[in-house]
Amino acid sequence: METDGAPRGLPPGPTAGLTPGLPSDVAEALAGPLVDHHCHGVRRDGLDRPGFERLIVEGGLPAPPGTTHFDSPVGLAIRRWCAPVLGLPPHAAPADYLARRADLGSHEVNRRLLREAGIGDFCVDTGLNDPGLLSPAEMGLAGGGRGHEVVRVERVAEEVAERGPSAAKFADEFAEELFRRAGAAVALKSIIAYRHGLDFDPWPPEPGEVVAAVSRWFAGYHAHERLTDPVLLRHGLWTAVGVAREYGLPIQFHTGFGDPDLALHRANPLLMTDFVRAVRPAPIVLLHCHPYVREAAALAAVYPHVNIDVGLAVTYTAAGSATVIAEALELTPFHKILFSSDCYALPELCRLGALFHRRGLGAVLARRIADGEWSPRDAARIARLIGEGNARRLYRLTRTEKREQ
Amino acid sequence: METDGAPRGLPPGPTAGLTPGLPSDVAEALAGPLVDHHCHGVRRDGLDRPGFERLIVEGGLPAPPGTTHFDSPVGLAIRRWCAPVLGLPPHAAPADYLARRADLGSHEVNRRLLREAGIGDFCVDTGLNDPGLLSPAEMGLAGGGRGHEVVRVERVAEEVAERGPSAAKFADEFAEELFRRAGAAVALKSIIAYRHGLDFDPWPPEPGEVVAAVSRWFAGYHAHERLTDPVLLRHGLWTAVGVAREYGLPIQFHTGFGDPDLALHRANPLLMTDFVRAVRPAPIVLLHCHPYVREAAALAAVYPHVNIDVGLAVTYTAAGSATVIAEALELTPFHKILFSSDCYALPELCRLGALFHRRGLGAVLARRIADGEWSPRDAARIARLIGEGNARRLYRLTRTEKREQ
Amino acid sequence: METDGAPRGLPPGPTAGLTPGLPSDVAEALAGPLVDHHCHGVRRDGLDRPGFERLIVEGGLPAPPGTTHFDSPVGLAIRRWCAPVLGLPPHAAPADYLARRADLGSHEVNRRLLREAGIGDFCVDTGLNDPGLLSPAEMGLAGGGRGHEVVRVERVAEEVAERGPSAAKFADEFAEELFRRAGAAVALKSIIAYRHGLDFDPWPPEPGEVVAAVSRWFAGYHAHERLTDPVLLRHGLWTAVGVAREYGLPIQFHTGFGDPDLALHRANPLLMTDFVRAVRPAPIVLLHCHPYVREAAALAAVYPHVNIDVGLAVTYTAAGSATVIAEALELTPFHKILFSSDCYALPELCRLGALFHRRGLGAVLARRIADGEWSPRDAARIARLIGEGNARRLYRLTRTEKREQ
Repeated sequence: METDGAPRGLPPGPTAGLTPGLPSDVAEALAGPLVDHHCHGVRRDGLDRPGFERLIVEGGLPAPPGTTHFDSPVGLAIRRWCAPVLGLPPHAAPADYLARRADLGSHEVNRRLLREAGIGDFCVDTGLNDPGLLSPAEMGLAGGGRGHEVVRVERVAEEVAERGPSAAKFADEFAEELFRRAGAAVALKSIIAYRHGLDFDPWPPEPGEVVAAVSRWFAGYHAHERLTDPVLLRHGLWTAVGVAREYGLPIQFHTGFGDPDLALHRANPLLMTDFVRAVRPAPIVLLHCHPYVREAAALAAVYPHVNIDVGLAVTYTAAGSATVIAEALELTPFHKILFSSDCYALPELCRLGALFHRRGLGAVLARRIADGEWSPRDAARIARLIGEGNARRLYRLTRTEKREQ
Repeated sequence: METDGAPRGLPPGPTAGLTPGLPSDVAEALAGPLVDHHCHGVRRDGLDRPGFERLIVEGGLPAPPGTTHFDSPVGLAIRRWCAPVLGLPPHAAPADYLARRADLGSHEVNRRLLREAGIGDFCVDTGLNDPGLLSPAEMGLAGGGRGHEVVRVERVAEEVAERGPSAAKFADEFAEELFRRAGAAVALKSIIAYRHGLDFDPWPPEPGEVVAAVSRWFAGYHAHERLTDPVLLRHGLWTAVGVAREYGLPIQFHTGFGDPDLALHRANPLLMTDFVRAVRPAPIVLLHCHPYVREAAALAAVYPHVNIDVGLAVTYTAAGSATVIAEALELTPFHKILFSSDCYALPELCRLGALFHRRGLGAVLARRIADGEWSPRDAARIARLIGEGNARRLYRLTRTEKREQ
Repeated sequence: METDGAPRGLPPGPTAGLTPGLPSDVAEALAGPLVDHHCHGVRRDGLDRPGFERLIVEGGLPAPPGTTHFDSPVGLAIRRWCAPVLGLPPHAAPADYLARRADLGSHEVNRRLLREAGIGDFCVDTGLNDPGLLSPAEMGLAGGGRGHEVVRVERVAEEVAERGPSAAKFADEFAEELFRRAGAAVALKSIIAYRHGLDFDPWPPEPGEVVAAVSRWFAGYHAHERLTDPVLLRHGLWTAVGVAREYGLPIQFHTGFGDPDLALHRANPLLMTDFVRAVRPAPIVLLHCHPYVREAAALAAVYPHVNIDVGLAVTYTAAGSATVIAEALELTPFHKILFSSDCYALPELCRLGALFHRRGLGAVLARRIADGEWSPRDAARIARLIGEGNARRLYRLTRTEKREQ
C-alpha cells in the first residue's frame, strides 16, 4: 500500500494537545509517527446513533433508559477532540457530531480521524473476520501509513475446524495453517483471556488429550462455533509458541479490561506467570492490562521477554489516562512499553488513543523534567522508544520501508 | 419529617473547601444538596475518648499502646474540618475536641455536623438494629433533610428466624416480610461480602436445599445468631432480587474495605461477575469498592445495570480522597456514580464524607477544565449527576417532595 | 560499631532534594536520620557492567539484546542521584558512572553512598548468608550508623537441617536455634511468600505432621536445599511466632513485588488475613507490598498489630515513587508506616531508597499543607514517626544508644 505524502505525526501542529512548556526535542519526539502495534479495522459504512453509541463502550450493551454512552470519559473526549477534526467546535453536542459525521460520510471521517492520529504503522488484528471492517492494507491507506497483520490464534483454529477435518488430522492442519498465516504477519495474538481466563494450565496438553478434545468438539459441532475447550486453547497456544519461535514473532495476549464476555478477575496477567516462565525467551506482549497495569509492569520488570501496553485503557480513561500511563511507567523498563490504540470499528478511538498517549506521556515527561529527575534528552529518547522504537525492534518493522512506500 | 428551612448545600459559604478558581456554575453544582444514598444512623448519646476512638476506625479495635487513632487520615480530618463546626480552631487537639463535643452535647453536635454536610436526603441502612442510633426519620430531622430506609436483607432473614417458624415455612415468611419491608424502602442491601465473601455460587439454591439448610440452622439455633450459611445467604439474595424486581428497587452490596470481620480479597466485586450477569437488568449498586475501585468501575462501564460509589473510602482516605475519586471517574459512566458518606455512629463521618466528596470531585473537575478536556457546563452537569441526580433517578427520589416538606 | 561524627540526615544540605517551600520544621524532620528497618548487606567487592546491571533489576536476569537495564526508572535515578555523590555530573552516562565507580573502589563507593542516605540504624536481613555482603556491623560502620540483625526464619531452619539432625529432633533443634539467634536480633523475617505464597494454611501443623514432613525432606535431602515444604514452612512460622512473643519481636513478611521466583498474585498480603488474625497481638510488618499497597494499608488500618512499609517499591519506582508513598498514606495510620530501603548488594539502592522516601513523603506533606489539610506541626511529627519513630518503638531501638556511639 502507499501513502499520500501527508504530514506525519500530530497534525496540524506537531505539539497540539501536549503539555505546554515541554522542551522542543521532547515535543518533537512525542509528535513523531507512532507504531500502533495492536488495533482492529474501522468500519467502512456509516452508523446511526444507537449503532455509534454501541461502539463507544466495551461490549456494546445499550445505556440504561434516560442515559447515554456519551456521558462517559470517552464520550466527552469524542466531543472535545474529534469534533474539531470534523470541522465542529470542541464540546459539540452528540447530535451535531453524529449529523456532521453522516454528512461527511464514513470514508472521509475515517480518513480524517485516522490521519489525525499520526500513525505510521498499523498492526491490525484480523481475527474478528468482519468484512465490514477495513483490512490492514486499507487501514494503512486510510491512515496514511502501512498496514500489517496480527493473526489471532483461536480464529485460525476455528477456521480450520470449519473445514471439517478428521479429529486425528486437526492438529496438523491447524499447525500448517497457523504457520502459513504467520509467514505474512508481524505477530500472533491469543484471546484465551476471553475464552477461558489466564488461569489456564501452563503446560501443553498431550497429543492424545488433544485428539480426544477435538473429537468431543466436533461431535457437537455447529457452524461458527467458538473454541472454548481448555485443552484445545492450550494446544492452540503452544502451537503458536512453536510457530512464533520459528519466525521470531511475539505473541500478544489480551489481558485486563474488555467486553462483558470477560471475567475480569481471570484476566489478571499474573495468573499466567507459570506460562510466562515456561515460554521464555519467546517474546510476549501483554495488551491493555488495566486495572492490572502495575501487575503487568512487575512482570515486565523481572522477565526480559515480557512487554506491555496500556492501549484500550488509555482510550477509555481518556481525560484520566495520564494516571494510567504514569503507573505503567513506574516500574516497566523503557524498552518494554509499547503504544497501541486498540481501536475497533470507530476511527475516533484511534485518534483518541494516539492523542491521549501523547498527552499522557507528555505530562509524565514534563513532570519528570520539572522535578529534575530526567534529562530532556533521556525523556525524548524514552518518548521515541515507547511511541515506535520498541515496536520496530520487537516486530522488526523498518523505518526505511515505510519511507519508501 | 420536616426541615427547618436551614440553608442547603455547603455552609457557611457554598464554595468553602472547594478548589479555588472553579467556575461558579461548577462550584454551585458541587455545593448543592446531596443525596446520601447509603449511610447509617449516628448515635444519640455522648461518648468518652475510648468510645470515640473506637468509632473513627473501621471495626473498632483499640490503637496499639502509645498510639492513638487520631493519628490517622480521618483523625487529622476531624481536627481540621469538624473542630471549626463546633467552634474550635482548625487542628484542635483531640482532648480539646472531645471536651467541646461533651460540652455541646450529642444532640447539638449531631445537628451541627449533619447540617454542615449539606445533605438533602439520607438513605439509611437500618440493619444494625441498634436503638442507640438515629432512625432514618431522625437522621433527616437532625440533618435538615429527609430520611429513607434501606432494608438489609440478611437482617430481615435473621428477624424472621428469631420468630421461630418451622423450617418448611421459613422461606415463605421471609419472602413476605422482605416484601412488606421493601414496600416502605428505597433500596435493599446485602452484606454477603461479610457473611461469606463475594465468591458465592451465583445461582439460586433449589427449594429442597433451602429447607435442609434452614433445618440445620434452626437445629443449633441460638438467639441473635448471624446468618452465615452459604445456601441461605444465596437464598436471601435471590429472594431480594425477586422483591427488588417487583418494586423496581436497586440492591446495594457491600464490597471492598470494611471491618476486621471481612476477608478483603473475597470482597472484590469482580468475584460476583456471574451473579451480576444473572440478575441483569435488576439494578445493582456496588458500595465503597476500595481498593477495588477500578475493578468496580470496569463492571459499571460494561454492564448497564451496575452502579458504584466510593463512600467510606472517601471518608477514611480523607485528605487523600481526591485520588480515589479520580480513579472512580477514570472509567465509570457519569450516570453510574453515586455519592454516599456511609457514616456510622458519628456525625463527623457524614460531614467529612460530604466535604471530601465535594473537594475531591471539585479537584478533578478543576483539572479537567484547566486541561481543556471538559467544558464547565459538562463539569457542572456531572457534579449534579453524581451528587444527587443519579441517586434520584435510581431510587426515584423526587426533588419536589423534598421541597414540600 | 562507631560512627565518625559525620553529619546525619540528608547531605550536603538537610533539605537537598526536597519539595521547595516546605516549612522548615517539616524539612528538618524529613532530613533527620532514618531507621532503615529492613535492608540487606551491600557487596564488599567491585562489579563489571554485566554484574552491576544484574543488580539494578529484581532477580538479575539480563536485559534483552540491544537494551540495557539502565533504561529503567532505577537506572535513570542512579545516573541522576548517585553520579553526583561520586563526583560526576547528574545524568552521567552509564559507562562513565561505572568507570568512576571502579576508580573509587567499592569501599569508598559504599561509604559515600550509604552515608549520603542519612541513615542512623540499619536493620539487616542476614538470611542471604553471602560472605560477599557486608554484615550488619559493617553496614553500620560504612554508613555512619548502627547495624542490627533481622533473622530469616527459613534460613535458620535450613541451617539446622544442614547439621543433619534426626527427623524427630529437628523441631526442637530448630526452636532452640531460632530462640538463640533471636536473642541478638531486632526482628524475625519470613519469606514464605517466595517459598510457597501467602495463601498458606493459617494454622500450625500438628507435631506428627511436622515429623513426617521432616522425614520426607531429609529422605531426599541434598546440601543447601531450600525449605519449600508447606507443612515445614508453617511450622517455621509458628515457631517464629512463639519466639517473637517471648522476646517481644516483630515478624517481618516479604509481600508483593520481588524476583522471578515469586508468583506475585500469591504474594498479596490479604491472602494471609486469617493468619494475621490468628497471631494477634504479635506485631507483624508487611514489607514492600507493591502493587498491593492499598490492600496492606487496609490491613494496617483495621488490625492494630499490622504495620507496613513500601521499601523496594520506592527504590524501583524511583521518580514515580511519590505516588506509591501517597497511596500508602491514604489509609494507613501514621503510627503503622515504616521506612526501609530494602537495598541489596548495591549502596546505590540504599541512597535512592532514602532519597525517594524523603522526596516522596515531602511531596505528599507539602500538598497536604498547601491544601490546608494538615498543620506543619502535624506534618513534621508524621515525618518523624515514619522516618524513625515508629521503627524505634516497634524494634525498641533507643535514640540514646545511637548518639552514644
